Amino acid sequence: MSKKNKSKSAPPVAEKAPPPANRDTVIMTELVLPSHTNALGTIFGGVVMSWIDVAGAIAAQKYSRSYVVTVSVDYLHFIAPIKTGFTVSLEAKITYVGTTSMEVEIVAYSENNITGDRRKATHAYLTYVAVDEFNRPRKVPPLVPANLEEKKLRQEAERRREARLAYRESM
Amino acid sequence: MSKKNKSKSAPPVAEKAPPPANRDTVIMTELVLPSHTNALGTIFGGVVMSWIDVAGAIAAQKYSRSYVVTVSVDYLHFIAPIKTGFTVSLEAKITYVGTTSMEVEIVAYSENNITGDRRKATHAYLTYVAVDEFNRPRKVPPLVPANLEEKKLRQEAERRREARLAYRESM
Amino acid sequence: MSKKNKSKSAPPVAEKAPPPANRDTVIMTELVLPSHTNALGTIFGGVVMSWIDVAGAIAAQKYSRSYVVTVSVDYLHFIAPIKTGFTVSLEAKITYVGTTSMEVEIVAYSENNITGDRRKATHAYLTYVAVDEFNRPRKVPPLVPANLEEKKLRQEAERRREARLAYRESM
Amino acid sequence: MSKKNKSKSAPPVAEKAPPPANRDTVIMTELVLPSHTNALGTIFGGVVMSWIDVAGAIAAQKYSRSYVVTVSVDYLHFIAPIKTGFTVSLEAKITYVGTTSMEVEIVAYSENNITGDRRKATHAYLTYVAVDEFNRPRKVPPLVPANLEEKKLRQEAERRREARLAYRESM
Amino acid sequence: MSKKNKSKSAPPVAEKAPPPANRDTVIMTELVLPSHTNALGTIFGGVVMSWIDVAGAIAAQKYSRSYVVTVSVDYLHFIAPIKTGFTVSLEAKITYVGTTSMEVEIVAYSENNITGDRRKATHAYLTYVAVDEFNRPRKVPPLVPANLEEKKLRQEAERRREARLAYRESM
Amino acid sequence: MSKKNKSKSAPPVAEKAPPPANRDTVIMTELVLPSHTNALGTIFGGVVMSWIDVAGAIAAQKYSRSYVVTVSVDYLHFIAPIKTGFTVSLEAKITYVGTTSMEVEIVAYSENNITGDRRKATHAYLTYVAVDEFNRPRKVPPLVPANLEEKKLRQEAERRREARLAYRESM
Repeated sequence: MSKKNKSKSAPPVAEKAPPPANRDTVIMTELVLPSHTNALGTIFGGVVMSWIDVAGAIAAQKYSRSYVVTVSVDYLHFIAPIKTGFTVSLEAKITYVGTTSMEVEIVAYSENNITGDRRKATHAYLTYVAVDEFNRPRKVPPLVPANLEEKKLRQEAERRREARLAYRESM
Repeated sequence: MSKKNKSKSAPPVAEKAPPPANRDTVIMTELVLPSHTNALGTIFGGVVMSWIDVAGAIAAQKYSRSYVVTVSVDYLHFIAPIKTGFTVSLEAKITYVGTTSMEVEIVAYSENNITGDRRKATHAYLTYVAVDEFNRPRKVPPLVPANLEEKKLRQEAERRREARLAYRESM
Repeated sequence: MSKKNKSKSAPPVAEKAPPPANRDTVIMTELVLPSHTNALGTIFGGVVMSWIDVAGAIAAQKYSRSYVVTVSVDYLHFIAPIKTGFTVSLEAKITYVGTTSMEVEIVAYSENNITGDRRKATHAYLTYVAVDEFNRPRKVPPLVPANLEEKKLRQEAERRREARLAYRESM
Repeated sequence: MSKKNKSKSAPPVAEKAPPPANRDTVIMTELVLPSHTNALGTIFGGVVMSWIDVAGAIAAQKYSRSYVVTVSVDYLHFIAPIKTGFTVSLEAKITYVGTTSMEVEIVAYSENNITGDRRKATHAYLTYVAVDEFNRPRKVPPLVPANLEEKKLRQEAERRREARLAYRESM
Repeated sequence: MSKKNKSKSAPPVAEKAPPPANRDTVIMTELVLPSHTNALGTIFGGVVMSWIDVAGAIAAQKYSRSYVVTVSVDYLHFIAPIKTGFTVSLEAKITYVGTTSMEVEIVAYSENNITGDRRKATHAYLTYVAVDEFNRPRKVPPLVPANLEEKKLRQEAERRREARLAYRESM
Repeated sequence: MSKKNKSKSAPPVAEKAPPPANRDTVIMTELVLPSHTNALGTIFGGVVMSWIDVAGAIAAQKYSRSYVVTVSVDYLHFIAPIKTGFTVSLEAKITYVGTTSMEVEIVAYSENNITGDRRKATHAYLTYVAVDEFNRPRKVPPLVPANLEEKKLRQEAERRREARLAYRESM
């Protein structure tokens, strides 16, 4: 990482060596309130999108140890209904790392706490870019696949990335 | 449209013939408040996503004259920065109509009201399904391309739709 | 405009000549959510007032190319009911320009997207003052009536202004 | 009060005689948070308007012992600045009672808790109508002036009311 | 559990045997936004309290498979500062079960994602009561200590409970 | 008060002698909106806790003429239900003053404005510490009991304080 990209903004980076990138799955839990839902008691898509964006941003922050901005959203699908009184559990995990960008897979589960019923409700890939305190892109640590399974996931992520960049160029 | 799919929910559908589908572009304007932005004064991706979802939902409601639920988000790209104090103008327009689903293109423009600077900030395609008051899919009026330009747009939308359905099947 | 009133605050004014005042009608669209309404499903007056204030402020910002603060609200009338699930369309237009103040007329339409029914729901006049980054009043470009119709509207606005200033003095 | 206008909605009216109208001044206190203010640290007019509407609605509810809806806002003036970290104290008092409508005077004081500085910041008259659970107007108890001072205030309120009704007719 | 206390409200309880009580720790993650903090960039106590209440309520819902209401808050201590841009991780775990009440221990950790610094920030005990759809208390499954460690924790919880009930009686 | 603890932050402390400590009861009134309540129409505990924290913070600010941070919450009990459409009146009063800390007693009353029914709904003791603009503790004016009644209240508060400090040490 070049010196000029090193973040000095608040909250301040310690003088000593930065902590290692953290790739742990981020778990976020939200309770669906009446203010999140429409007249039929179903959650607004935009509310889930906001939660997905926050969960992904936290995962990308922890991996890059830096501020991040959202760059794109792809393949976001709503699969099972989410109703008032349900709990939504979001799980965010880094799936690809470029020079300054990170792709995060976010899965949201819809849970009825009364019946114990739990279903995959939403699935999405979001891309973030690490930035310094002047909003300039910063390099992030490389992500080396640890095994064959991760190598395969990386190849799939690379295909999504190419489609994304091609589309962006065509805009 | 089959009788069993006819919505009876509030707000009530008039007894007489329903009004014609309205394909006008929906225009939504939002002021970027400090509570929408991070420590660097840049808007949270999730806030823009919520606005995009609402703008698209209104366009889909007006076209289908029914309640709608969000089904998927694709090709959502953040292009230009959106800062505290800026205005965001969203324009939502129906681009494709299936039996019960509608694809809406939503473009968000970021405006600095002091300098008059205005840029395309976000672009996305969202898909909605029309539903009755029991959340069951309802048929929507067909969208017939009016000219060659619209025919071409329809073909592009059909390609996006096929990719979407293929991906959904593979999940 | 005197040099001392020129705004230097963020978002920054370009060094070059400021863009011309923009008198276009500002269009804002809001979806009425359950959290905006009371137990009877009717919108809170205060929610509509907030939207009216934002729509008017954007119109005043675009006209003056500066920050603005709200000074007064007059003749705000609620005419037709606004219910959960409806869309509210707000239209804001500059009606009078003083040395540093601007009167904006804001009309809000209530729309039932299912039935297509649309009614004038609220009407109001709000006054804003353009300010620099230290909250000091700034001059705004004069508004010259373009025709007889605009001349008549200006005379009406002047009467409202005199009543406003007289009342303010008496407080 | 006619039987047909008696409210049966939740929260339920007790079977026994209704409690007497309560004309006490309603006191509401709000802390100005960063999310209430613009980039210059000054509160949004719309936030104050929302608080004013709630304070007035509570006063009207207590007087009429019924649900109420906001009908109009007049003479709302912002006099002193309200900044982040300040406290706003609102005082709402019934000033006029018609058959089904009530005028409420709301004064908002801006307080800097650190310096103890307290100023009248906003003043307004809002009109509410008492409604039953179907949003139909309900009669409210008459307000008889208790002394000369109150008689004078009533005459002023009647002048405001006449101006309001004349304006409403002309719309 | 008596038949008359069986919940029939939405979301509906399945006809078949209810799922076993779930005592897993509930993990909730929140990002500290500018709107959560005061002028000094420190979070409002009330924001953390809201998160604590939601985390505890989800744990109590999952354990009792029923709606719950908050009954009391005790020993809530703020230990380390929580600043804008930090992440707050909340962990909620059932510590005691009475006939219809549950005590939940909630610990909140404050994390600076840039430096990786993580500290215990808040600690609290909240008590909830399981209720049916008419807000009447419902029995909850008993919690049998599995080992000596759990037996000791139960004894401590019983002491907190006695102090709580004695205080409540004295009010 | 030592010079180094003197606050210079915004809102600015006047150069002249600071105003005397203000021990008046702070009165706050809130209307319970649908967005504050669960599917059963009962308020979320966390919403009341937020209001309690704000009411207490204002009382502590007025007494200390300084910024404050919440340190602990004790004996917070929910006694009577609070429903949608009700008004909540909060009363906050200083009960104990240490070197830099203040204990505030906050009582919340639940009011049904339609029936006039009013009940004590919540009772709590919160502790705040006065801080300067760098979040360092500041001394606050001593609170001298004025009579026997106040002396007794002070002794009770001292017992609560000792229990609090002992618990904090043991954490």
